[in-house]
Amino acid sequence: MASNYSFQYFNVRFPDESPYVAHVEINRAEKMNAFFEAMWLELRQVFNQLSEDSSVRAIVLSGAGEKAFTAGLDVKAASQGGALAGEASVDPARKAVHLRRHVLKFQDCITAVERCEKPVIVAMHGFALGLAIDLSTAADVRLCSKDVRFAVKEVDIGIAADIGTLSRLPKVVGNFSWVKEVALSARIFGADEALRVGFVSAVYENRAATIAAALKLATLIASKSPVAVQGTKELLNWSRDHTVQDGLRYTGVWNSAALQTGDVSAALLSGLQKRTPTFEKL
Amino acid sequence: MASNYSFQYFNVRFPDESPYVAHVEINRAEKMNAFFEAMWLELRQVFNQLSEDSSVRAIVLSGAGEKAFTAGLDVKAASQGGALAGEASVDPARKAVHLRRHVLKFQDCITAVERCEKPVIVAMHGFALGLAIDLSTAADVRLCSKDVRFAVKEVDIGIAADIGTLSRLPKVVGNFSWVKEVALSARIFGADEALRVGFVSAVYENRAATIAAALKLATLIASKSPVAVQGTKELLNWSRDHTVQDGLRYTGVWNSAALQTGDVSAALLSGLQKRTPTFEKL
Amino acid sequence: MASNYSFQYFNVRFPDESPYVAHVEINRAEKMNAFFEAMWLELRQVFNQLSEDSSVRAIVLSGAGEKAFTAGLDVKAASQGGALAGEASVDPARKAVHLRRHVLKFQDCITAVERCEKPVIVAMHGFALGLAIDLSTAADVRLCSKDVRFAVKEVDIGIAADIGTLSRLPKVVGNFSWVKEVALSARIFGADEALRVGFVSAVYENRAATIAAALKLATLIASKSPVAVQGTKELLNWSRDHTVQDGLRYTGVWNSAALQTGDVSAALLSGLQKRTPTFEKL
Amino acid sequence: MASNYSFQYFNVRFPDESPYVAHVEINRAEKMNAFFEAMWLELRQVFNQLSEDSSVRAIVLSGAGEKAFTAGLDVKAASQGGALAGEASVDPARKAVHLRRHVLKFQDCITAVERCEKPVIVAMHGFALGLAIDLSTAADVRLCSKDVRFAVKEVDIGIAADIGTLSRLPKVVGNFSWVKEVALSARIFGADEALRVGFVSAVYENRAATIAAALKLATLIASKSPVAVQGTKELLNWSRDHTVQDGLRYTGVWNSAALQTGDVSAALLSGLQKRTPTFEKL
Amino acid sequence: MASNYSFQYFNVRFPDESPYVAHVEINRAEKMNAFFEAMWLELRQVFNQLSEDSSVRAIVLSGAGEKAFTAGLDVKAASQGGALAGEASVDPARKAVHLRRHVLKFQDCITAVERCEKPVIVAMHGFALGLAIDLSTAADVRLCSKDVRFAVKEVDIGIAADIGTLSRLPKVVGNFSWVKEVALSARIFGADEALRVGFVSAVYENRAATIAAALKLATLIASKSPVAVQGTKELLNWSRDHTVQDGLRYTGVWNSAALQTGDVSAALLSGLQKRTPTFEKL
Amino acid sequence: MASNYSFQYFNVRFPDESPYVAHVEINRAEKMNAFFEAMWLELRQVFNQLSEDSSVRAIVLSGAGEKAFTAGLDVKAASQGGALAGEASVDPARKAVHLRRHVLKFQDCITAVERCEKPVIVAMHGFALGLAIDLSTAADVRLCSKDVRFAVKEVDIGIAADIGTLSRLPKVVGNFSWVKEVALSARIFGADEALRVGFVSAVYENRAATIAAALKLATLIASKSPVAVQGTKELLNWSRDHTVQDGLRYTGVWNSAALQTGDVSAALLSGLQKRTPTFEKL
Repeated sequence: MASNYSFQYFNVRFPDESPYVAHVEINRAEKMNAFFEAMWLELRQVFNQLSEDSSVRAIVLSGAGEKAFTAGLDVKAASQGGALAGEASVDPARKAVHLRRHVLKFQDCITAVERCEKPVIVAMHGFALGLAIDLSTAADVRLCSKDVRFAVKEVDIGIAADIGTLSRLPKVVGNFSWVKEVALSARIFGADEALRVGFVSAVYENRAATIAAALKLATLIASKSPVAVQGTKELLNWSRDHTVQDGLRYTGVWNSAALQTGDVSAALLSGLQKRTPTFEKL
Repeated sequence: MASNYSFQYFNVRFPDESPYVAHVEINRAEKMNAFFEAMWLELRQVFNQLSEDSSVRAIVLSGAGEKAFTAGLDVKAASQGGALAGEASVDPARKAVHLRRHVLKFQDCITAVERCEKPVIVAMHGFALGLAIDLSTAADVRLCSKDVRFAVKEVDIGIAADIGTLSRLPKVVGNFSWVKEVALSARIFGADEALRVGFVSAVYENRAATIAAALKLATLIASKSPVAVQGTKELLNWSRDHTVQDGLRYTGVWNSAALQTGDVSAALLSGLQKRTPTFEKL
Repeated sequence: MASNYSFQYFNVRFPDESPYVAHVEINRAEKMNAFFEAMWLELRQVFNQLSEDSSVRAIVLSGAGEKAFTAGLDVKAASQGGALAGEASVDPARKAVHLRRHVLKFQDCITAVERCEKPVIVAMHGFALGLAIDLSTAADVRLCSKDVRFAVKEVDIGIAADIGTLSRLPKVVGNFSWVKEVALSARIFGADEALRVGFVSAVYENRAATIAAALKLATLIASKSPVAVQGTKELLNWSRDHTVQDGLRYTGVWNSAALQTGDVSAALLSGLQKRTPTFEKL
Repeated sequence: MASNYSFQYFNVRFPDESPYVAHVEINRAEKMNAFFEAMWLELRQVFNQLSEDSSVRAIVLSGAGEKAFTAGLDVKAASQGGALAGEASVDPARKAVHLRRHVLKFQDCITAVERCEKPVIVAMHGFALGLAIDLSTAADVRLCSKDVRFAVKEVDIGIAADIGTLSRLPKVVGNFSWVKEVALSARIFGADEALRVGFVSAVYENRAATIAAALKLATLIASKSPVAVQGTKELLNWSRDHTVQDGLRYTGVWNSAALQTGDVSAALLSGLQKRTPTFEKL
Repeated sequence: MASNYSFQYFNVRFPDESPYVAHVEINRAEKMNAFFEAMWLELRQVFNQLSEDSSVRAIVLSGAGEKAFTAGLDVKAASQGGALAGEASVDPARKAVHLRRHVLKFQDCITAVERCEKPVIVAMHGFALGLAIDLSTAADVRLCSKDVRFAVKEVDIGIAADIGTLSRLPKVVGNFSWVKEVALSARIFGADEALRVGFVSAVYENRAATIAAALKLATLIASKSPVAVQGTKELLNWSRDHTVQDGLRYTGVWNSAALQTGDVSAALLSGLQKRTPTFEKL
Repeated sequence: MASNYSFQYFNVRFPDESPYVAHVEINRAEKMNAFFEAMWLELRQVFNQLSEDSSVRAIVLSGAGEKAFTAGLDVKAASQGGALAGEASVDPARKAVHLRRHVLKFQDCITAVERCEKPVIVAMHGFALGLAIDLSTAADVRLCSKDVRFAVKEVDIGIAADIGTLSRLPKVVGNFSWVKEVALSARIFGADEALRVGFVSAVYENRAATIAAALKLATLIASKSPVAVQGTKELLNWSRDHTVQDGLRYTGVWNSAALQTGDVSAALLSGLQKRTPTFEKL
C-alpha cells in the first residue's frame, strides 16, 4: 500500500499496531515544515486519497522534527514565486481576479482536511504558526504538547488570515473575545491557554507523547463502525453551519441509509458477547 | 392539578415550596430509566402540556433512582420492536422511507423539550448515556452531580447519533475539538470535564443536591415575570440559529408586543418598594 | 483633533503614548454611567466618527468613576420619557409599531460599536449591568477588573433583553447552559466566572489596571497594518454569522483587494530588518 | 379503506379509474366551503393520514359545490369563537402569547399539505379567497377553471395574511410586483391573469373539467415510481428554501438511499419492453 | 404639511383626491433626472421621513418631464467628484476601503425605499436606465408607460451594477435567463417585454396615464387598514429572504401584536354595513 | 490555441467573427449526444480551462447533429458501468456511501458550467431531456429552437433528478406549480411553453438560427468590459442564494477592487468618442 502513498513533502505511514489508521507527517523539518505552493497542492492529494481509501478509518497529522509542527507559510518562497510577488504593472481589478483565484485554490487545499470523510486528529508541537492554525481548525480533534507556541501570525505580515482561520476559529472555540484578541494581536499563546479556551482538547508532555496519544485515539475511533464514525463527522460539520432544525432533518435523511448497515447488529452482538466487533471495509 | 398530569413513565410533581415550578421525573428506575418508544411519545405529551399550562413557569427534569439519569435507548426493546428490527425483505429505498419517518418522529419528541415555552433545567446523575445527551442538549440549563458518567454512546452500537446530539452539541459547547472527540470515541466523561468544557454549568455533591439546586434555580426563575422569562428562552434559541441581525430584528418584533405588559411597571414598582412582585398568569 | 471629539456624555481622548488609539469614556459617573436616550444616540455618533477617522486604529471603551462601567438603562429617565412610558389610550397594534421602531433604533446605536471598522476593546469594572452586557458583546475584546459585578439584568424589570445581549451572547460565549442561566435568572456574576466561561478574556487587579491593559493591547494592535487589522475584524464578524464556506469565499473576495496593499512588503521588510514598520494612514 | 377516511368536513374518495389517487373534497358547499377551526384541524388529520398511506401516490384537492373552492375564513365563526374574539381585559403581552399560539397552530394545519409526502394537485373554481390562497400555495400544482375569482383578501378585514400566503406566494410566483399588488390591494383576479403570472399552471373550462384534468395528472404521476415521485417533491421543496449548493448536497444524501430501489431496473426494463411498469407499495 | 417636505431635488405632493397618499417626483427634468450624490442622499431623507409620517399610507414615485423617469447615474458629475475619480496615488487596498464605504452608503440611500414602512409604487416612463432599475427593484409595485426604455446599463461603463439591481432583480423577476441576458448585455428593453417577464405588473398608454394609475392604486391601498398594509409589506419582504418556515414563524410573532388592532372589527363592521371603514392614524 | 482545446467528446471552436467567444459543441451526434461518465468528466475539464483562459469572454454551448441537444444520460452505458449497476451483495449503508460519492462528483462536473467565470449561453434544439435540463440550468442564458422537446425525464427511470435540476429549476423559473408539474410528470414540453414560463428567454426558427443568435449575443457580451461582465455573473449567482442584504454587502466588497479597473475610464471615453472600447485581457 505504501507505494500508493509515496509523496514528496508528506510521509504517510500505516502503523502496524493501529489497524485502519494512517499517520501523515509534514516532512520538511529542515525548514520548520514551512509550506510553499507545491506542498499545499500535495496536501490536498494526500487527503483526497485517504478520504476514499477503504483501509483507512482515522488519520493522525503531525510535523517532522522537534522544532515545529509548522512555522506556517514559507514567506520567502511565497514572495519570490507567486501571487504576492506583485506584477506591479497590471490593473488592480485584474490583479484582484488572480489574487482571488489564488486564495480560493489555497483554501480548497486546506479544506481537503475537512472534506476528508475520515476523522483527522492533529498532533501539534513546537512552533505552530499561521497556516498551522488554518490547518488545525480544518481538522477534527486538536491535541498539543506542552512546548507548543501557537500564533495567528498573519497580521504581522500585513494580511488578514485568509486560508481558513478567520472562518473556522470562531466556530471551534467558544470565546469570541479571545479569538479576536489573538487574531488581532498575533501574539504567541501556549498549551495551557489553548486548553483553557478550548482550542485544543488535551495537552501532553512532549511531541512524542502527543503523537502517541493521537495514535491511540485514532486507533480507538478506527475500532468502531466506520459507518457510524464517518456519519458522525459529517453530521457534526453540517450542523456547525446550519440551524438545529436543518441539522435534524439532514441527519434523518442521512441515517435512513446508514441505519441499514449490518454494523448495528454486529456491534450489538459483540456487546452482548463481550468481544470486539469487526466491521466490513468502507 | 395532579390528575391532569398522570403519566405512566414520568412523574410530574408541583412542589409546594416552589410556586409555578413543575418537576418531571423519568420513572423507570428498575431499567436505569432507559427509553423505549412509548416513553418518548409520552415525553412529548408531558412537555406539550406543560408548555401551555399557565400555572407552570419553570421545569426541572431528573431521573428516578440512584443509578442513572437515563442509560439511554433501551436497545433490547428497540431491537425487538421497531424500526431497527429489520424487515429484511424490503427494498432499501422503501426501508429508508420508514427509517426516516421513524427518526424524524423520535427527534420531534425530544424537540418538545426545546419547543416548550418554559425554561427546562435538567438535573443529571449516575449514568447519562446516549439519549441523555440528546435530551439534555434540548433543555435550557444543564446541571449534574459528581458521580455522573456521560457518554455520546451511539457509535458503540454502530449508529451516528440522530435524535439531536450531533445537531445541538456543537451549539451548546464551544469546544469543537472536544465535541468531536467524545462523539467519535464514545468514551465516558465525568462531571469535572463536563464543567470545564461548558457542557454543564454547575456540579453538585450528589443526586439530591443536584435536584435541590435545580429546583432552587427554577423557583428563582419562576418568581420573575413570565413574559420576560419566556421571551428570553425564545429569543436565545432563535438567535442560536440566525445571524445577529436577524436576531435583533426578530427581538424587536417580539418585544413590540411583550413590552406592553403590565409586568414592567409591576416589577419596577416592586423594586422601588423592595418587595417581591407578583405577576398575572401566562 | 480633540475639538472634533467634543461630546456631552463621552470623553474621547488620544493618549500620547498610544499612537492611533482612541480612548472613549462613558462620562456620567454621578449616575453610575446609566444610559438614557440622548446618550445612546451620542454613542452612535462617537463610533461612526471613529470608524472613518484615519488617525484611529484601535479603540478602548471604559466608564468614568470607580463605581460602575455602567449600571445599565437609567430606568427612571426611561419611564418618564419615552417608549416605555405608556400612552395607554392607543391601539395595541399601533403601540407595537412605535415600540418596534424605538427598539430597532436603540439596537442600531449599540450596533455602531460592532459596525465600527476599528477594533474596540472594552474595559469593565464595578457594576456592569444590563446595557453593559449589550454594549460589551458588540465590542471585540472584553476585559474586566476583579471587582466587576455583571448581570443580564433585564428580566428583573419584566423585559427580555432586546438591545443585543440575547442575539450576541450565545455567539460570544460557548456555554449555552450558562448563557441561559444568567439570562433567565438575572443573577450577578463576577470576574472569575466571566473568565472561566469565556465572557471576558482577561481579568486585572482594578479599574486602573484594566484600562491600562486595554490601552496596551490597543497600542499593540494599532502598531500593526491597519489593512490587516480592519480586515481581520470584518472577516471574523462575517464568519460568526455565515457558513464556513461563505466565510471562505467572502474572505477570498475581501483579500483580492487587501493583498494589493504595500503593507505586506513594508511588514516583511521591517521583519527582516528587525525594526518596527510604519504604515500609511487608512 | 373508505372507513378509515370518514371525515366530517372532507370527502375522501379513491376513484376506481385512478389507481393510487386520493381525491379530497372540501365539503361545506352550503357555506361556500368557508373554514372554521374544526375544519382546519381535520384538514391536518386528512393529510397526515394520506401522507403515510402506502396505497396513495398522488392527491387531488377540490371544493364541493359550484360556487366556491373556498370563500376563505368563516369570519362569523371566527369572530364568535376564538382567538380574534377579544378577551378585552387581558394584558396585551399575554394576549399576544395566545394569538401567537393560535396562528402557529393554524399555520401548522395548512402546512400539513406541504408536509404530505405525496404530491397534491389543487383544482380551484368559483370563489377562491383568502385561505384558498394560503392553502393552494402549500400544495404542489395549482389548476383552475375559467370562472375562478381569486383574492388575497386579508387586508380587507384588517389583517396581514398570516397562514402562509405571505410566506409562500413570493416563492411560487416569480413576479414580485404582482405579488405585492394583489396582496396590498386585496383585489380580485381571474384565471387568465393567474395563468399569465404563473400562479396556476393551467386553466380549464369549468369546475368539472378542472377536476378531471387534476385527476388525470394525478393518475399519470401515480403511475410513476413512488420512490422517484416522493423524492422529487421533497427535493424541490428543500431547494426552494436553500442555496443551490445545500440543495445539491441534500439531494446526494437523499438519493444515496433512493437509488438503491428496485424501481430503477423495473422502470428501465418496462421501457425496453414497451409496457407499463408496476412498482411495489411505498 | 408641505413645508416639512420641501426638498431640492424631489417634489413631494399630497394630492387632495388621494387621502393618505404622497407623490414623490424626481425633479431634475433638464438633466433627464440623472442622479448625483446630493440627490441620493436627499432621496434617503425623503423616504425616511415618509416612513414615519402617520399621515402617509402609500407612496407614488415618478420622474418629472416627458423624457425620462431617470437616465441613471449622472456620469459626468460622478467622474468629476467623487469615488470614481481616482486618487491615483494611493495604495489599492486603501482605495478599496474608500470605494467600499462609498458603495455601501449609496446602496443604503436606495434601500431607504425598501425600508420605508409604507408601500411604494413606482411609475416609470421614457428613459429608465441603470439607477432606474436599482431604484425600482427596491420599490414594491412597478408600473410603466408604453414608451419606456429600460436598461441595466452598468456594464456599458465598465461596472457590475452595485447599488441593488444585481441583488434584487433575481428576486423580483422569475426568469433568471432573462435577468442574466439583460444584465450582461446592457441592451434596451421595452414595456411589452417588461410585462411579459414580470418586471412590471402593468403597462399604460403614456406618462400621465401611468402616474394616474399609480395614484389610483395608492389611493386604494391607502383606504385599507394601515396595520394590515404595512404588515403585508414587511412580511413579504422578510419572506423573500428567508425559508418558508422562518417566514411563518416571523409572521406569527408579528401578528401577535397586529391582530390586537381595532382595525379588524372596524373593517368587519364596515363590511357588514356596506360602508367604507376609517382607520386611526399609524 | 486550438491545440489546447483538443477534447474527445466536445468540439471547442473560436469563431473568427466572434472575438473572445468560445463555442463548445457536445460531439456525440450518433448517440443523440447522450452522456456517459467520461463525457461529464471531460465537460468539467473544458469549462475549468475556459474559466481561466484570458482570451475567452463568453461561451456558447450547443449539441452536434440535428436530432438532439442531448438525449440525457446514456442509460445503457450507465447501467453497465457504474454506480447504478448494483453490487447486490453489499451492505446498503456502504452502498449508499459509494452512490453518494458518485452523485456528488457527477454534480460537480455539471456545476463546472456555473462555476465558470465567463457567461455561458446554451443553445438547445431537438431532444433536450434529463441531463439537458440539469446542464442548461447551470448555464446563464437559455435559448432554444422551435423544434425543441424538453423533459425532466428522470422520474420515468425511477429516479429523482439529482444532478442539478431539482436544486436549480425552482431558482431559474418563477412558476413553482409548473416546475413541479413537469418534474413530477416527466412530460415533454416545447419551445412556446418554455418561453411562456421563462425557462428560455428566446426561441428561434431552427438549430442553426439558435446557435447564430447565441453567438451574436456572446459576441455582444464579449465586447464589454470583462471586469464588469464577470462581476455581473458572479454577483447574480451569489444573490440568487443569499438575502438582499448579504447580496448588497458582497457586491460592495467585490466592487471595491473591480471599480479600480481602467475599463471604467476606457468605456466612458469611448462612449464620448462614439467608438468601440477595447479592454485589456483578463
